[in-house]
Parts: sequence; structure tokens; C-alpha cells
Amino acid sequence: MDKTMKSNRRGFLKGGAAVAGLAAGAVQSAKGIPPEAELKVKGTTPELIAYGERSPFVTSVRKPVAERDSPDMFGLMFHVLTPLQDSVGSITPSSLHYVATHRGSFIPQIDPKEHRLMIHGMVDRPLIFTMDDLKRLPTVTRVHFIECIGNRAKPSHKNVQETHGMTSNSEWTGVLLSTLLKECGVQSGASWIVGEGAEEIKGASSVPLGKAQDDCLVAWGMNGEPIRPQQGFPLRLIVPGFEGIFQTKYVRRIKVVDRYYMTYNDYGHINPDPKATALGNQIGPKSVITYPSAGQQLNGPGFYEISGLAWSGGGAVRTVEVSTDKGQTWKKADFRTPAFKMAHVRFGLGWKWDGKECVILSRCTDDLGTVQPSRAEAAKYFNKPLTDDFRVPGADNTIQHWRIASDGSVHNEFV
Amino acid sequence: MDKTMKSNRRGFLKGGAAVAGLAAGAVQSAKGIPPEAELKVKGTTPELIAYGERSPFVTSVRKPVAERDSPDMFGLMFHVLTPLQDSVGSITPSSLHYVATHRGSFIPQIDPKEHRLMIHGMVDRPLIFTMDDLKRLPTVTRVHFIECIGNRAKPSHKNVQETHGMTSNSEWTGVLLSTLLKECGVQSGASWIVGEGAEEIKGASSVPLGKAQDDCLVAWGMNGEPIRPQQGFPLRLIVPGFEGIFQTKYVRRIKVVDRYYMTYNDYGHINPDPKATALGNQIGPKSVITYPSAGQQLNGPGFYEISGLAWSGGGAVRTVEVSTDKGQTWKKADFRTPAFKMAHVRFGLGWKWDGKECVILSRCTDDLGTVQPSRAEAAKYFNKPLTDDFRVPGADNTIQHWRIASDGSVHNEFV
Repeated sequence: MDKTMKSNRRGFLKGGAAVAGLAAGAVQSAKGIPPEAELKVKGTTPELIAYGERSPFVTSVRKPVAERDSPDMFGLMFHVLTPLQDSVGSITPSSLHYVATHRGSFIPQIDPKEHRLMIHGMVDRPLIFTMDDLKRLPTVTRVHFIECIGNRAKPSHKNVQETHGMTSNSEWTGVLLSTLLKECGVQSGASWIVGEGAEEIKGASSVPLGKAQDDCLVAWGMNGEPIRPQQGFPLRLIVPGFEGIFQTKYVRRIKVVDRYYMTYNDYGHINPDPKATALGNQIGPKSVITYPSAGQQLNGPGFYEISGLAWSGGGAVRTVEVSTDKGQTWKKADFRTPAFKMAHVRFGLGWKWDGKECVILSRCTDDLGTVQPSRAEAAKYFNKPLTDDFRVPGADNTIQHWRIASDGSVHNEFV
Repeated sequence: MDKTMKSNRRGFLKGGAAVAGLAAGAVQSAKGIPPEAELKVKGTTPELIAYGERSPFVTSVRKPVAERDSPDMFGLMFHVLTPLQDSVGSITPSSLHYVATHRGSFIPQIDPKEHRLMIHGMVDRPLIFTMDDLKRLPTVTRVHFIECIGNRAKPSHKNVQETHGMTSNSEWTGVLLSTLLKECGVQSGASWIVGEGAEEIKGASSVPLGKAQDDCLVAWGMNGEPIRPQQGFPLRLIVPGFEGIFQTKYVRRIKVVDRYYMTYNDYGHINPDPKATALGNQIGPKSVITYPSAGQQLNGPGFYEISGLAWSGGGAVRTVEVSTDKGQTWKKADFRTPAFKMAHVRFGLGWKWDGKECVILSRCTDDLGTVQPSRAEAAKYFNKPLTDDFRVPGADNTIQHWRIASDGSVHNEFV
């Protein structure tokens, strides 16, 4: 990171007086001690001692898709978006993690003492685990993103919360599913698992056995505390890099089976070829600039840090490139956080804005060498005309364009 | 981490039937679908859409030192402890970060639009930065612990929250102080900086210029959102690896000077030798087992994962060893999270408890090769008798012993 910083600092300081380059005269030269604001204080209550809260000046909040305050026309589907425009670093605060549910706005309130996980089906020793049983086992902690397949930009979207707010990143703690499967003894001929949740529609999904035996987690911890109810308290199946619907909340049953099982969740996945179905579930390399992004405002020409997030279901992010001229030329961005597998990485690039209208965009390449496509490339791949109506089939990981007007306002440039 | 897991799994499965080894018969063999608990649900309010909350079944909270609910006899000192016994992974949830303050229980409520940071003193260009100015600069995100020098075990302490709860670990985001100092142009002859907060007693501390130009941060982000008011909103000086009092909250002024400046905070630091003073501020290698720890209860003999945290002000943690026989023999623990510099690392070690009374302990070695000492070693070093009254001068990083009784109860073994 230090090497990274050095190259940035060079960019940032180059071309004359340091102060002038910094923020176009916005930074004041200090002639004396700055005037001190009147100190307002708040008394600490027992509640604030027990569990702290945000500043009243911090008002960043999640918003439902299309600002609906109740489930949509499908009856129960309900999506709540992370305010990525305010994000810093790589971890999404648990209170701001996106929510997608088919259970409407009702969240199960499960007593962890009563919760059980059964593993059964094609195993030698079907087992039922209490939460205490699970917590005695060898534990892993890993940073992974979860993204909903519905996470896609539309021309009407006004900010990055609307275009990309259905992806979030957490430090998950639990036991590897492979550890549990070894205890149960998977029988030959098994090829899939079905994870099922405790809520009324069971939130079941089929996952290839190879994935289940690789890096899936049965997780109870999220960002240093128990998983939140909106995220599956007390237990969630984490299937790193697969779309959100596979990350079964409230997981109570994992059945080892010999075929893909159709479930309530399959409305979007039905495919005659089970291999295509399985591969279609992995999120492609994706990135988005969160600052400057639509709805934000630059304060005149000068130095800015372009900042954003990149992720891939195909492994770690290898490189992120940023263009400030609508994709004509690209510069490699620096990583501000470690690039873990199937996790958000924060990227940054120093940039001196000349005050002219421009379009900025980012492009991610993952460890597999897969490159995030433009919408034009996606249209070509799927052999469809590139119109405003063109909707990328499956997960949409196309490049997002932001247009910066000469007055510093930033807009969604849907191309 | 996979290699790590493999060695653990071997330990965990060895010596007979996998199930018997797992949790001493506690795991049930599944004969059918487990009975399903009645599903209780909670309706989602606009507040819960905006910003999520914990499960009502999660009751882990911070506690004031000695359960005082108001400042202590010194007048305004107030310490609130992180519940490390419930911690998972490496990140401390911001709501559970420990709090230490000399301002009593009153927390400044600062409007970030009004906040300024002035850098002045022995610089060519004294500057005043707004929050917006700072956020335009090249940003870094780093995981660092903060520990209070008062974090020390006593014989009367009943759990790890009381013995070690004044250390917490966060993902901090901000600008390197070195970037700001370069903008201001540090003059020759300068050797220290003094960081000063906006609150009434100013929370000032002197930091060696070499440290300030190395890895110090001026941070506004904490675990993906703005720093919490109890942690210095909107701006905190992070001095990685130094004791907590140097991490100036509400920082509004950094003065570059040519000597150590005495401040209100120096009641514990006064030393005729400024070099000794500077070196004395760095936290030594330290570790503690958080599970099983005092106040917890093992549920009979069988397999358990011993889990804990290790950290050092001297760099990254190199190794953690665990003993389950009062320090006669040691085994190397595995890391469950990356070992960043001046950050908590989560360690784990699989262990099969035979049901007999024993004493468990952990020992940390950092990148400098410095080894966490026992209390007996500390007493010898300071040439004092090892009695219950012996108090390690400065930061106490000695090894913590937990005694597990044959009934599975765990106790603070103060030796």
C-alpha cells in the first residue's frame, strides 16, 4: 500500500505548488488558530454504554427498491439497497447490508437455543447440530460479498445506491460446510446439496457438491457479532461468489442428493442443462465508482480521489482500470484494501479534474482473467440490439458510466 | 487457511469414530426431519429498513469498569469494556468498541460541516482543512487495534471483558498524516507533533515526528461508515500500535514542534528521558484466549476449538502458541484471519478436553521477535517480588491463565 500511495502522491503533487494542486485553493492557509465551534455534548445513557450509536449528523440509510415501503406486485418480494455512495473501506456495516427477501417485510425471530441444522440424504451418518455443537468446531473467518442477481442499472436510476446497492461485503465467521459433510460421510453418487431455511417458504437452493465441499461456510458471525435477523440469524449458508439467493438464510437443513432439485427460488434459474444452471450462478467480475457517482457534486476543478468497489465470483480481483475519457484510455487503479477471494476490494486513483464535462468508468479483471464487459459487448455476446430496452440476461456485470457536467454535478450515463 | 484447516481437521477427527470425537455424543444422529419450531416473525418498520438492528436474542453488551455507571473518583475518567467473550473474527463491531474518556460521560456532538483540522507550527505552509478537503485526498484503509494502557487483569476480574476488554479492532479509513505534513512542508529541526482534540480538555498528546511521517492516519471512516461519536466523530488521529490515549479523538489541531510537549494526558507518561517516554508508548505483544475464558462453561469432555485474539504495537503477530497444561508444553495455533500490522489476529487451535482440571494460556510473538512475558518474567525484569500486589509498570501485556475445573466451569487463574 505504501508503494501505491507514493505513486498517488506524485500524481497529486505534480505540476506546481503543492497547495494549489491540492484542492484548487479550497484549503485555507492558516494565519492563526481557527475559531472554535461551541462544544455541544450529549450525556451518555446506560443504553449508549451498552451499545453505541451513530452521530445524529450521519444520516446515510438503506432504501427500498423504487422507494416502495412494502412488498412489490409479486406479492412478497422486497429489496432494500445499501447506500454505496457513502461507503468507505471494504466492509459494509451490518446495519446497512442490503436485504432481499421473498418473505415480504416479515423477518423470522429465531431463538438460537431452539435452532437446529440437520444434514441428511446421501450420507452415512445423518446428524443434527445445535448452535453450541457448531461453535465447538474448527472455525474460519472470511471476507465475502453477497450480491443479488437483480443488481442492475437502469436509465432512471439517480445514484449508485439504485444502480448497484444490492451488493454488500462482510467478515463472516463459521464452520466450513466441508467439515460437516466429512463428519456425515458423503456417499458415492451424490452430486448436489439442497440448503433449506427455517422460514415459511424455506428459501431452498441447489448447490453443486463440489462447491459445497470447497469453500462454503455455515456462518453464525458477521462483522464480529452474531448475524443480523435480516441476514439469517442465527445461521446462514454462505456460497462464496454465487448470487445472493443461494446464501440460504436461517439454514436448518442441508440434504445431500444426486440431482438438481427445483425449488421455490428457481423462478429465475430454470435451465434444461444442469451444468449451465450451476455455472450461471457465479457472479462475474464487476466494479463501480462510488465517488464521484451520480447525485454527488464536485466542488470545482482540482485534485480528487476516484474511489470505488470491485468484486468477482470467480476469485480475487486482479486489476481495476479507470477511465476518465469515456473508455478511450485507462489507468490502473490502486487497491486500498486486500483483494480477498469473492470479496469487495476498495480501489482508488488520484485524478486532477480540469473542469470540463467528462465520463468516468471502471473495469474489473478477476483472477481467472475474465474482464468486466461493456453493455455493447454484452449485447454483442447475446446477439441482441443495444437499445435502452436491452436487458443483460442473468447477472448484469456491465460497466457503469458516470457523466460529470462542467458544473461538477454527476449523472447516470446509461449507454 | 485451507492448510490450517486440514491440520485441525486431523486433530479433530483422530482417535476413532468421527461422531464420537466431534462433541462427545452431544450431536444427535438424525432419524428424521427435526421438529420445526413455531415461526415467530417481526414486521419491518421504516426504521429497520433504513438501518438494521440485532436479534433480541443477542444481548452482548459493553460494561463500565467495575460496573460504575458514572465517572470515577478522579472526576471524569470513564472506561467502557468490549465483551470479548462473545467476539468472533477480528473486527470489533463499532457499537461494541471500548470507550475511554477523560471527559466523563459527555460525548461531543460535532457538526462535520463546521469541523476543521489545522496543521501549523514548524511548517512552511500552515493549512486549515475542512472535512471535504480531506476526503478529496488519496485515501488509505487499514485494520488497527486500539488498546488502553489501563487494560490489565486483576485477581477479582470475573471474565475476559474485565481482564482485557479495553482493546478493540477496526477497519479505519482516512488520509495518511504524512500526506498532510508533506503539503505543509515540515521544517528542519522539527522532531515531534502534538495532536489536539476539539473537546474541553483537548485530549492532546505528543507523538515523535518519525512516527507521524510513517503510518499515522487522520481517519474519518470506521468499519465502513463514519467514526462513531464515542470514537471521535468526525475525525480521529490514529497512531498505530501506540496506547489508546495517543489516538486523539475529535482532532482539530496538529502542531509540529521541536520537543516533547507536556499535556493534560501526561499523568501516566512523565519521564525525564523523552526517548524512553516515546518508546514506552508502544503496546507490547499480547494475546488472550476468549473461548474458553472465565465465566464460560464447557459442556463435558470432547472436542473444542480454543479461540482468541493476539496483537502487538511492534508490527504484525508472527506466532501464537497455546498451552493446555499451565505452560509446560505449547502448540502453535492457526490464524483464522490475516495478520495485519498493529491489528488483532484471531487464532484457533483444535483441542480434545479429557474432562480433568487444567490451565490454558496463550503466548504471542510479534514480527520484531518480542515474546509476550509471564507475570513472573515481568516481575523479574522489573526486579520486584511476584505477589498479588505486583503491578506491571506501564502497559501490562503478561500472559493470562484460565483454569478449567472438572465440572467444565472456567475461572480467572491470577498467577
